[in-house]
Amino acid sequence: MMTASHRLNDLNLPERAAQLQHRLDQKTKPQGSLGELESLALRIGLILQTDTPHLQQPQMVVFAADHGLAARGVSAFPSDVTWQMVENFLAGGAAVSVLARQHGVALTVVDAGVARDIAPRPGLQIRKIAYGTADCTQGPAMTSAQCEAALQAGADVVRGLPGNALLIGEMGIGNTSSAALLMARLTGVPLAQCVGRGTGLDEAGVARKLAVLECALQRHADVKEPMAVLAALGGLEIAMMCGAVLEAAAQNRVIVVDGFIASSAVLVAQALQPRVLQRCVFAHQSDESGHARMLAHMDVRGLLQLGLRLGEGSGAALAWPLLESACRILREMASFADAGVSQPDEPACGT
Amino acid sequence: MMTASHRLNDLNLPERAAQLQHRLDQKTKPQGSLGELESLALRIGLILQTDTPHLQQPQMVVFAADHGLAARGVSAFPSDVTWQMVENFLAGGAAVSVLARQHGVALTVVDAGVARDIAPRPGLQIRKIAYGTADCTQGPAMTSAQCEAALQAGADVVRGLPGNALLIGEMGIGNTSSAALLMARLTGVPLAQCVGRGTGLDEAGVARKLAVLECALQRHADVKEPMAVLAALGGLEIAMMCGAVLEAAAQNRVIVVDGFIASSAVLVAQALQPRVLQRCVFAHQSDESGHARMLAHMDVRGLLQLGLRLGEGSGAALAWPLLESACRILREMASFADAGVSQPDEPACGT
Repeated sequence: MMTASHRLNDLNLPERAAQLQHRLDQKTKPQGSLGELESLALRIGLILQTDTPHLQQPQMVVFAADHGLAARGVSAFPSDVTWQMVENFLAGGAAVSVLARQHGVALTVVDAGVARDIAPRPGLQIRKIAYGTADCTQGPAMTSAQCEAALQAGADVVRGLPGNALLIGEMGIGNTSSAALLMARLTGVPLAQCVGRGTGLDEAGVARKLAVLECALQRHADVKEPMAVLAALGGLEIAMMCGAVLEAAAQNRVIVVDGFIASSAVLVAQALQPRVLQRCVFAHQSDESGHARMLAHMDVRGLLQLGLRLGEGSGAALAWPLLESACRILREMASFADAGVSQPDEPACGT
Repeated sequence: MMTASHRLNDLNLPERAAQLQHRLDQKTKPQGSLGELESLALRIGLILQTDTPHLQQPQMVVFAADHGLAARGVSAFPSDVTWQMVENFLAGGAAVSVLARQHGVALTVVDAGVARDIAPRPGLQIRKIAYGTADCTQGPAMTSAQCEAALQAGADVVRGLPGNALLIGEMGIGNTSSAALLMARLTGVPLAQCVGRGTGLDEAGVARKLAVLECALQRHADVKEPMAVLAALGGLEIAMMCGAVLEAAAQNRVIVVDGFIASSAVLVAQALQPRVLQRCVFAHQSDESGHARMLAHMDVRGLLQLGLRLGEGSGAALAWPLLESACRILREMASFADAGVSQPDEPACGT
């Protein structure tokens, strides 16, 4: 069972945190003046357990799957867009392809449960559990066996990839619905505050989506345990992301979480293993309306606030250079002593 | 005279904007789903007047100078930190050095008016107008001849540098005071809302700073015209940045503006030539308390909200990859037609 094998060490060691903070405070800048970049440096230092972190061979993994719910008109786009976008990722034309290439981040696309067969090729891992989930207004989206297989496959994907940083993204028409359902059930936030426009529903579309999701939530009213919630309301890509996150956390990789749907996978993972959050960097706060509340529930903040709502991992890729910067600040910036720069209330060394 | 020679074309041409927007809307993503990255792509496309913008040979220029006001205790750090940090920039150990290096942005440091002679070396331009400004509580910070010479030198610096993008940063102990004074006079925002902690004053320090700056503002109560305001209350590095901005704007370079002080130089420049703002990208919203209001006054938004308050150009460097991303989205992303991806309300092409 996943959850048992992933008992996580506490990385928030006060002594190491103090050491990192001291190193940051000795850099030639007013204390704290690099704001959240300093918090990020501290976080990465704690994850990688060093004062001079190097991010190596970063891996962007995009998990794709279809959703039974999509047949109920919860998305502005048809389900075929899932496989079409998988083709686009692999051809290099999607936003995440362009941005990963820009930053030298390796891109792997995982077929977690796309409703159509995708031809094998480099950069694609076929880990298909099913041709999409079942309609969760009628029964569980996945059987518990499918859900466990998806978690396991996600862990296997990570085990097969090098490096100490994992960026997670996703593709799946209908998956803001799954993410909203997971959020409502696991956080207790009212469903209406978890549901948003997804890829671009109008108000009437959001109302339809909300009505469908109310049904789904009622259908599984007595399901509370995180793994069971994931099986009942989740998606195959979300379950596989959750497995990837648990494995990456166990390996103390830096996990860069994209938007609303990737965050929902982390929401499940941290319900199983709270210390997962110690390994996570949240790339951005999405424009999808539930995301701000979901992040607040986990007591975390997104690095970027750019009104993104694309998913795929595009936000994680956009934030990536900030992680590199945070490491370089720790590694490369001179200290006051190194550079002979005066500090406040200190006699100037040059006069 | 600077202002006359820099009459700027209107770059906000509706036809070109529509063409760029159409190109963005045909990319394989829900319309608008890349949020501010799309606005940024539009802006860069308008500045460079192309649908497929390439940012070339980006130049970070850090203008450094000292301030007569610093003797009045308006900063947490001693004035010697100005020249010490210039040495640090040139040695590669400052935040802006590290971040510019990370992103392949060329770094030039300009001695606009440091109170001490800096030994000549590669990467340094000595354009010293004076050994710091005069104390503006006693008279104008600069003579009008000094101010014009600084503007001219800033323009000359830009003329001597290649590329189509200019990133501006600064160093000068006391310069949040100058920036606050310029802001108060040019925007009409009450001084108390323009003044902040700078490099890290405590509350008593801020109160002292405010009292000193009230004096300065009253001393020049009748000075209203932007060039005269700049001379009376500005700094040599701010005036030189202002000249650099006007020249870069005339050349239709993309101008990436760092934080509070760099923005104050743009505030002066746009008071002289409003269309300067069409060429500007504001890298971030600083933690310095007046910056949010200053940006609001110019009706612009910073890309990053990371609580930065270091200056130097560090925020401009951190935001730089977002500009590259915006260009790549326009150049490299596939369109729906290219990739065979279905759009909303369109029959799926694969079924």
